[in-house]
Amino acid sequence: MGAPVERTRIRRLPDKAVRERDALHAVLDAGMLAHVAFVHDGQPYAVPVAYGRDGDSVLLHGSTGSRLFRLLAGGAPCCFSVTLLDGLILARSAFEASMRYRSAMVLGTCGVVSDQVPALRLISEHLVPGRWDVIRPPSSKELAATLVLRLPLAEWSLKVSDGWPETGPEDEGWSPPVGVIPIRTVLDDFVAGEA
Amino acid sequence: MGAPVERTRIRRLPDKAVRERDALHAVLDAGMLAHVAFVHDGQPYAVPVAYGRDGDSVLLHGSTGSRLFRLLAGGAPCCFSVTLLDGLILARSAFEASMRYRSAMVLGTCGVVSDQVPALRLISEHLVPGRWDVIRPPSSKELAATLVLRLPLAEWSLKVSDGWPETGPEDEGWSPPVGVIPIRTVLDDFVAGEA
Repeated sequence: MGAPVERTRIRRLPDKAVRERDALHAVLDAGMLAHVAFVHDGQPYAVPVAYGRDGDSVLLHGSTGSRLFRLLAGGAPCCFSVTLLDGLILARSAFEASMRYRSAMVLGTCGVVSDQVPALRLISEHLVPGRWDVIRPPSSKELAATLVLRLPLAEWSLKVSDGWPETGPEDEGWSPPVGVIPIRTVLDDFVAGEA
Repeated sequence: MGAPVERTRIRRLPDKAVRERDALHAVLDAGMLAHVAFVHDGQPYAVPVAYGRDGDSVLLHGSTGSRLFRLLAGGAPCCFSVTLLDGLILARSAFEASMRYRSAMVLGTCGVVSDQVPALRLISEHLVPGRWDVIRPPSSKELAATLVLRLPLAEWSLKVSDGWPETGPEDEGWSPPVGVIPIRTVLDDFVAGEA
């Protein structure tokens, strides 16, 4: 169980909150892309990043030239969000129309990972298992241009919507088809090619 | 063309920047979920939201009880990001491993939409075309519990990665399969059901 601290307490639809750490891990392991929110000059940004989970933290990598990675490496507070869209919920009313989703959110600050290669390998293996062993590993010059960051899964929330459309007394007399359009992310067959 | 202002100038991999407004529209029209970044008590958050595009703005809807929507309605600066993940780029080196993606980012502040019904219809039709005409429209009580916001597509960036893996002289002697694993989002057949 994660610490049910105030900043990650789920306020809207609290019945959708999940507190099991295994469920958080499963969502992070199923995702491929996160959005990381940070603040610069008072302006919030949400930037997509690849990642991998290493036990009770997530690992990110980026360029030393990236504003996001330099700010995070400097200890800027961030929010790391992974949302998996699982379906569209079609209800009798507009008001009850909704989505099926699994939404993980982690708040905190990142630490810089000095032992870069195992971390880069973990991120690579998360996305394409087995790939690391056949590719050229990073050179020292490439590593010098790379920032690897670790964000602990300490302050987090997980919200899961996996139900069916709700019908109320106001909906009497309205009988459109109701149910769910499932949504999946599909990886197609590998296409060989080079720039 | 969008205004090439400093805050949305693409710093990393600027050759991937796209400035055509039609391309921005196409990405927003293809997406179903955005992440909205905002700041509360110095902490950034990235929260998933449904949306629809109305000409040169995006429309969002949420509960009047939602912290996100109350802050945005109060004029808090935000970042609205839609990222479509199109593939995994498998290169000879770890360093050149990458993703195919289309990433739209809009900065600004939202205005509150008083004429809610056409905006809610637009968001609904974006997600499930034709649905609005067969469902129960929102009651005045439901509308009173709903905030509809409009964010102009004024300050924005679009970054598109759609290429093939790069090979350099350092990769000589390394010959793993190189290419792309395409990724698609699939809507499956409707499944009837009710809570």
